[in-house]
Amino acid sequence: MFNAAIKAVDVVLNVSLSRRTVLCSIRHYCKKSPKKLRVSEALEGSDVGSNITVEGWVRSVRSQKDNLFVHVNDGSCLQPLQIVASSELNDALLTFGSAVEVTGCLKQSPSRKQPVELLADRINVVGGCDTLEFPFKIKERHGLDYVRQYPHMRCRTNVFSSMMRIRSAASAAIHSHFTERGFIQIHTPVITSNDCEGAGELFQVEPSGQTTEPDKNFFSVPAFLTVSGQLHLEVMSGAFSRVYTFGPTFRAENSQSRRHLAEFYMVEAELAFTQSLEDLTKVMEDLFRSVTEQVLDRCSEDVDLFHQRVSPGHRAVVEAMLKKSFTVISYTEAIDILNRSSHNFVFPTTWGCDLQTEHEKFLVKHCGNLPVFVTDYPYDLKPFYARDNTDHPLHTAAAVDLLVPGVGELCGGSLREDRLDLLTARLAQAGMEDTYDWYLDLRRFGSAPHGGFGMGFERYLQCILGVDNIKDVIPFPRFSHSCQL
Amino acid sequence: MFNAAIKAVDVVLNVSLSRRTVLCSIRHYCKKSPKKLRVSEALEGSDVGSNITVEGWVRSVRSQKDNLFVHVNDGSCLQPLQIVASSELNDALLTFGSAVEVTGCLKQSPSRKQPVELLADRINVVGGCDTLEFPFKIKERHGLDYVRQYPHMRCRTNVFSSMMRIRSAASAAIHSHFTERGFIQIHTPVITSNDCEGAGELFQVEPSGQTTEPDKNFFSVPAFLTVSGQLHLEVMSGAFSRVYTFGPTFRAENSQSRRHLAEFYMVEAELAFTQSLEDLTKVMEDLFRSVTEQVLDRCSEDVDLFHQRVSPGHRAVVEAMLKKSFTVISYTEAIDILNRSSHNFVFPTTWGCDLQTEHEKFLVKHCGNLPVFVTDYPYDLKPFYARDNTDHPLHTAAAVDLLVPGVGELCGGSLREDRLDLLTARLAQAGMEDTYDWYLDLRRFGSAPHGGFGMGFERYLQCILGVDNIKDVIPFPRFSHSCQL
Repeated sequence: MFNAAIKAVDVVLNVSLSRRTVLCSIRHYCKKSPKKLRVSEALEGSDVGSNITVEGWVRSVRSQKDNLFVHVNDGSCLQPLQIVASSELNDALLTFGSAVEVTGCLKQSPSRKQPVELLADRINVVGGCDTLEFPFKIKERHGLDYVRQYPHMRCRTNVFSSMMRIRSAASAAIHSHFTERGFIQIHTPVITSNDCEGAGELFQVEPSGQTTEPDKNFFSVPAFLTVSGQLHLEVMSGAFSRVYTFGPTFRAENSQSRRHLAEFYMVEAELAFTQSLEDLTKVMEDLFRSVTEQVLDRCSEDVDLFHQRVSPGHRAVVEAMLKKSFTVISYTEAIDILNRSSHNFVFPTTWGCDLQTEHEKFLVKHCGNLPVFVTDYPYDLKPFYARDNTDHPLHTAAAVDLLVPGVGELCGGSLREDRLDLLTARLAQAGMEDTYDWYLDLRRFGSAPHGGFGMGFERYLQCILGVDNIKDVIPFPRFSHSCQL
Repeated sequence: MFNAAIKAVDVVLNVSLSRRTVLCSIRHYCKKSPKKLRVSEALEGSDVGSNITVEGWVRSVRSQKDNLFVHVNDGSCLQPLQIVASSELNDALLTFGSAVEVTGCLKQSPSRKQPVELLADRINVVGGCDTLEFPFKIKERHGLDYVRQYPHMRCRTNVFSSMMRIRSAASAAIHSHFTERGFIQIHTPVITSNDCEGAGELFQVEPSGQTTEPDKNFFSVPAFLTVSGQLHLEVMSGAFSRVYTFGPTFRAENSQSRRHLAEFYMVEAELAFTQSLEDLTKVMEDLFRSVTEQVLDRCSEDVDLFHQRVSPGHRAVVEAMLKKSFTVISYTEAIDILNRSSHNFVFPTTWGCDLQTEHEKFLVKHCGNLPVFVTDYPYDLKPFYARDNTDHPLHTAAAVDLLVPGVGELCGGSLREDRLDLLTARLAQAGMEDTYDWYLDLRRFGSAPHGGFGMGFERYLQCILGVDNIKDVIPFPRFSHSCQL
């Protein structure tokens, strides 16, 4: 390649060239075609002295007598690159929000505000921005409530773009966390004929313009959007021992609260050859720690933006979570704690009742504002697949929830009933023996004790960033009466 | 930690111990609690001489006079671990398909067939398997058509478990490929009020048990399952420059063919500041090469299984694809090639017609059975967002498809119409100006030239593995009249 380049120059100039001259020509050629860099790469500083091109969107323009200062951001990081240019390069189109290509020499900056700056030879506005109509204004800090109104534009704000980078990094960290630990990723289906939780609140799916008449189902059976990939993961755990899935799940919940979405992301893992709930809590705690550490490490600027502007003081909460081991209490102990407290709860706290968000938040506070596992819930509260602890008189199932500061329930999991006789009896009791015959097969043919859990990904992001509204941690929120774009 | 362990032993034995004795005690303690290893870890051989426990499923049992030979697979790799035990350890429950925990000493194997074997002290059958009822039989090679009938069991066969490991590795490779190149992952929504392709064949979504009456929509508007995340990625490319999404997409296609699924996975990428289609074809070719190289490297045994048993001769096809640069021809050239050939096509090949699978496969063969990009399709064939080449008399759009051996179309992409006036005119012509006003906003506020593409993930797997039926490369296939589990 390099020889070919020399030859080409040689031919173009049509003279015999010394090696030195050829190198000069090549250098000159390089100057003509400057190196394209992302803003994040330029800011690293290793290209100081080089001719570069940067492309992005204008975050600020400041015109002085001789000089023009422009901040350009391309989404590769929170920080913009400072462009310094002769004021001759100013242009009416060069406004906040416009898209530009800038070429020039990267220099160390004389100011302490930024490590480098770009002395521009050329600023090319490739797309103007009508600043009057543009919903965001230069130098204004728009609140999350305001930017949420512009789902197609809010990624252009600092806070939301930081959020998307964090979400992307957390997602990558989840994948590498499991891959490094020998888990196989399974794309569990979105469309399913099961109702894993038996909970209702399902979305049904049929081709557009068709009714949901039983005889005319596209799939020959009623089909729903998945509420959990658990049962499909259980299938796969019986072959790969450790599997996970990370994808969208759905609830047709008629709620516009700050806590609910109709479409949200879940990380779910399933492990074969488990001995006890401890095998699951270890994996849950390990996941939380390793992903959070990676996110704090890789997105420190973006996370700082949240911990400084959106949720001041939250950094200390996150650091405490990472420092200390998570607490483990049984459901029975939890009920004791709630009953002994002087707090007035809206919902009852007698043994057998489900824990409500108010209870979960109280328990987290009670345990030092740290994550707490609650284990061994009343058997009757849990779905058919939860493993019977066969205890007495307080009949419990081997289920566990992880409660975290600010959010309440972050994860839910259980050992699964691996004993064919107990599972058959429970399904028969519910009249679901035939529907779940395939599920019983998993216990007929080489059943292994196994268990798993799910973690709400949006709740996880809320938890580590201190974000109050779940709609602010997902790119395009879907909820009752809202499906924008 | 180590000192603490010594101390603990010290306390337990309640005697003063020399260092040597302590180490022995620890070794003895280790022997009591053997190290748990995956089969893949055991096969690496670095634990030869250690006491270990392996858990998995029995793939074969061979009983000799004195010795018992059992092959155990746990899904961590294709190869099983050979267990050698005294025939006293035989048990009626120890059959093909049963789930076992085996403890013993890992030794180098005297046979060349395997690097190591486990001399078992203990074999614990944790879940028996009714071999008469179990759909798979020991030592039988079941065809893909047969195993496809058992969606909850087929992961227990060698071929399908290899497939799932390859799918998982390819998926991880896609994520790391984009992450390493500075792309931000965007979770584009599954539920959307858009119909990106304007193509029909949409699934509509409403809460179960409710009708799709216009006034009663859960989301206040009709909502569909996404056919592409492109428009949402375009939003995000206007802030991050490089974005990708990798998730399920849907078509309500009434087809049970080997080529179609109602739910399938797409990798989609969008890049801002593109200059020409070449900016896209480079990214597409780079993606194909890097992911394929990673898969061949990380799953060599699993891939070999396909290239030897499922599609003999396919290895050479894949190697040729990786060696040579992909060909680029224009649609107009493609039509010329088709017209000049003596092949009798079912569908016409006049300029302006869409390329059918038969045409695509012919073009691939014509170009040496290698991947070929076809560029600049007739303007009228492409959706509203494709960039107008404003050429004449053959009016084309800057769109590109990647055709590959065995499959035909693998990727489709285009530059997007970034010019507000042209886009507005085209949308107005289609009467879609109001619906896509938000999309026009993207051109009003800092529009940058941009483009992107989508790659069908299942087709990609079919292409590199030589698998004929798309239902064999996805864990739980969904198609017309079929939604099992």
